Amino acid sequence: MKIGLDDVEDLARGAAILGTGGGGDPYIGSLMLRQAIRDHGPVDLIDVEALGDEDFAVPFAMMGAPTVLVEKLPNGGEMVAALRAMERYRREQARAILCAEIGGINALLPLVLAVRCGLPVVDGDGMGRAFPQLQMVTYHIFGVPAAPLVMTDEYSNAVLFECASAYDVERLSRSLVVAMGGGANICLYPMHGRDAKRSMVRKTISLALGLGRTVREARRSSGDPLGALLAFLRTTPYYQHCRVLFEGKTLDLLRETKAGWALGRVVIDGTGSCAGRRLEVQFQNEHLVAREGDRVRAIVPDLIAVLDAATAEPITTEALKYGQRVRLLGISAAPIMRSDAALAVFGPQAFGLPYPFTPVETLNPGGSG
Amino acid sequence: MKIGLDDVEDLARGAAILGTGGGGDPYIGSLMLRQAIRDHGPVDLIDVEALGDEDFAVPFAMMGAPTVLVEKLPNGGEMVAALRAMERYRREQARAILCAEIGGINALLPLVLAVRCGLPVVDGDGMGRAFPQLQMVTYHIFGVPAAPLVMTDEYSNAVLFECASAYDVERLSRSLVVAMGGGANICLYPMHGRDAKRSMVRKTISLALGLGRTVREARRSSGDPLGALLAFLRTTPYYQHCRVLFEGKTLDLLRETKAGWALGRVVIDGTGSCAGRRLEVQFQNEHLVAREGDRVRAIVPDLIAVLDAATAEPITTEALKYGQRVRLLGISAAPIMRSDAALAVFGPQAFGLPYPFTPVETLNPGGSG
Repeated sequence: MKIGLDDVEDLARGAAILGTGGGGDPYIGSLMLRQAIRDHGPVDLIDVEALGDEDFAVPFAMMGAPTVLVEKLPNGGEMVAALRAMERYRREQARAILCAEIGGINALLPLVLAVRCGLPVVDGDGMGRAFPQLQMVTYHIFGVPAAPLVMTDEYSNAVLFECASAYDVERLSRSLVVAMGGGANICLYPMHGRDAKRSMVRKTISLALGLGRTVREARRSSGDPLGALLAFLRTTPYYQHCRVLFEGKTLDLLRETKAGWALGRVVIDGTGSCAGRRLEVQFQNEHLVAREGDRVRAIVPDLIAVLDAATAEPITTEALKYGQRVRLLGISAAPIMRSDAALAVFGPQAFGLPYPFTPVETLNPGGSG
Repeated sequence: MKIGLDDVEDLARGAAILGTGGGGDPYIGSLMLRQAIRDHGPVDLIDVEALGDEDFAVPFAMMGAPTVLVEKLPNGGEMVAALRAMERYRREQARAILCAEIGGINALLPLVLAVRCGLPVVDGDGMGRAFPQLQMVTYHIFGVPAAPLVMTDEYSNAVLFECASAYDVERLSRSLVVAMGGGANICLYPMHGRDAKRSMVRKTISLALGLGRTVREARRSSGDPLGALLAFLRTTPYYQHCRVLFEGKTLDLLRETKAGWALGRVVIDGTGSCAGRRLEVQFQNEHLVAREGDRVRAIVPDLIAVLDAATAEPITTEALKYGQRVRLLGISAAPIMRSDAALAVFGPQAFGLPYPFTPVETLNPGGSG
């Protein structure tokens, strides 16, 4: 399957929905991907089964606070430099590029790198959403080492991390991202085809494309993009449990760029069927938990998406501002993201939240209400 | 020449004098070097001319705040790991270990690494003293690249920096030292024999040994260790301009561990011939400038040593406390450390000091007064 110029907008919108508030505003990534496709042709999207077991495949991502990524644009050269440093260090040539997360800018930049280097991108990622820390991927859950990680910046600096623990990779590289200005390019979890096959969340790039396309087409035809989006989600293998949790107007907003993250919370004042109620969403790059008072409505790793009430356009945490009319979606995470091993790495406790994980369909048994 | 168990105390004392307040308390390094010599035999100290032009030689150092190094002891394994990672990355086997600085613990740990690996140590270093930043070495002044730098910690983490600029190596690796707990092991400025020959400050290890031995022997015989020390310094090729700048009692002390450094100042209240006067020494790991009011008495890169008034035992900045009776020595830096190119890297302006460099013998023309 090829991803061409006409697909970029759909992919960016779908990735912003799956980004669950984080992953970085995909606008910059869209511009870069358009330019790369214009220069080098469409992206070659392949199924993971098309990878040979011995094929070397390298995930790429931008690391840092989404608030910074919007202002500190990559030039593309440092992305290629990261891949080349990884290839030099591992003495192996990459046969494909992988996504670490199918959220925001990180769903688009691996495609930019791939077309620039003439490589295919594997349809899938390591979480089926976005997450703020490097160990929070299925690659880690299934035993693929996070290291070596290569980090590059716009000054041609390259730093290579060799750590036995994915948590050490996260801790040490995070401090360097801050020194590199809050955003940097990374290749990590280098693996072979056989490992990609057992550890990826499959087909999430084509799912993101489908989400974005559904919203776009529904705006023109039915005029009910949110309804069309929910209908599409229910046909997917991962996201079939989805609910409109709340509708309202954004009221209070606290957002802080700290230690390389965008941290904060937004309070939504209910309107329509939610009038008189209030809902608070807490985020660390991505939305972590949505609560009405003490009642949890959705919690990580399930997806919480804030969408424009009329257009169903996703709103990232760095684009939140006072007075936006929004609808809040709760969406089930992929089943492999809800296992005990997975929850230990990116469940509520991993973020210091005092609530157990409860599936969004259990928290909201009434269906789409 | 061999450095055996009986030499360790002399070397540690001499290195603390040349450490000019910094380089880390050599006590821990002494214990480690004693153990290494007991386990593996004496250190093989060779002249830089004994290195073949193609021989691969690797400097080793501890990086971080001296205040941290006293509490966070290396176990030795992470030193060897740093060397091995450098060898793997460069695909070259080390033939000798070099010192980056002949100050404090960093005059001793390269010897520990060398005996553990069965390698000789080259007699010399990159500054003839201690300095707080990685670009502040003659290796850099003479065009040897600081990168690749390998940094290891006690958890077997290894991080490799590839930067074109020594200043970027310093900036990026410094942020990682903080993440590694304030102290870490580094190999950097990997070079070949021909580069070592043109860029080293030669014979500083044997000079440090001579300084320490002179003080020890004078304590037993003449009872005037300070006089003996001055007499010895005057016979050396670098340190022949030396002065007792001040005597007094330590009064005010400000010391802060910040951003990976020990920063602060000490005020010395004059006694004896200095009664009624006050001198202030400002430091960043090492002593930077000694002033009486607006009058500069000695300034970087010249050496400023604080010694116990009776025993001539050097006192490092982290060992300073209220009420110590001290003598302050100003000592000329090696001539290659006073060139314009060198002063641009580690002269007063490099530390943000508002004074020009003036040699200690010009500031204090009266000789030893």
